[in-house]
Amino acid sequence: MRILGIDPGSRVTGYGVVDSDGRRSLWVDSGCLRVQGDGLPERLGCIFRRVQDLIREYRPEVMAIEQVFVSRNPDSALKLGQARGAAICAGVQEGLAVAEYGPRVIKQAVVGTGAATKEQMQHMVTLILSLSRRPATDAADALAVALCHAHTQATLARLPAALAGRGR
Amino acid sequence: MRILGIDPGSRVTGYGVVDSDGRRSLWVDSGCLRVQGDGLPERLGCIFRRVQDLIREYRPEVMAIEQVFVSRNPDSALKLGQARGAAICAGVQEGLAVAEYGPRVIKQAVVGTGAATKEQMQHMVTLILSLSRRPATDAADALAVALCHAHTQATLARLPAALAGRGR
Repeated sequence: MRILGIDPGSRVTGYGVVDSDGRRSLWVDSGCLRVQGDGLPERLGCIFRRVQDLIREYRPEVMAIEQVFVSRNPDSALKLGQARGAAICAGVQEGLAVAEYGPRVIKQAVVGTGAATKEQMQHMVTLILSLSRRPATDAADALAVALCHAHTQATLARLPAALAGRGR
Repeated sequence: MRILGIDPGSRVTGYGVVDSDGRRSLWVDSGCLRVQGDGLPERLGCIFRRVQDLIREYRPEVMAIEQVFVSRNPDSALKLGQARGAAICAGVQEGLAVAEYGPRVIKQAVVGTGAATKEQMQHMVTLILSLSRRPATDAADALAVALCHAHTQATLARLPAALAGRGR
């Protein structure tokens, strides 16, 4: 299964593409899209098109994106919302399933504890995907949510068998 | 000039289509799109597609949308941001210019005072467009921002001549 992780932002949108069979995950690509354009419409159009380009290039089956529980100020929330809206629309328009994961769930899946720090996350993403160097923060966050989806799907897939075994 | 006014919201997105020659504005269509879908991606995809459908049906030259200065809580700001992001992306993807106007500018253009109430706005929109009854709030807001664009463009168009006259 090929997964596109997206970490949307109004200035930088991180992305990470991962192939996973549920047991092993392989790094395909990751990076940061610098959002360009003078006005808001141009900038949202930029996010939409660049995410669309990634989808058309890598043909993932699913987009994974971090769920937001906003604690910041309303102005940042609005900006983040607009960027998320643009990125999610690109996924939906390209026919992808879009899965959302809360920050604690992502940390739990990647580091093993919901209270992990940013540095621990970057470190584990680098280890799990055998990268030669740490990816930039936004790219690491995008890879982390992609890995979270891979692990969650793998667990869900094993669940029926485990439950059946238990019942007997 | 045909203008599509959009009042985005995560539950209801208002729209208004207006034809204007800068002096007179004619109502073409207006209404409320009820946003449907179970999850966030479906709902944002719904806004994107329905705004896209409106654009393809009416072929406006420009989308006008209210600029937001958030005073509400971060959670509503995020939801509004996502809905705005979806609507604006639909406009940009369909090749429309997207113009933003602040709430006071819209009130000034439609009612003549930046401190107008919602009711005064609805009333003036009904009068200016000779509607037989008041449109719903979201549709009225969308028509108001479309009218604001029409008036602003008309003023800008007259400005060079006026300035040239002054200079002499």
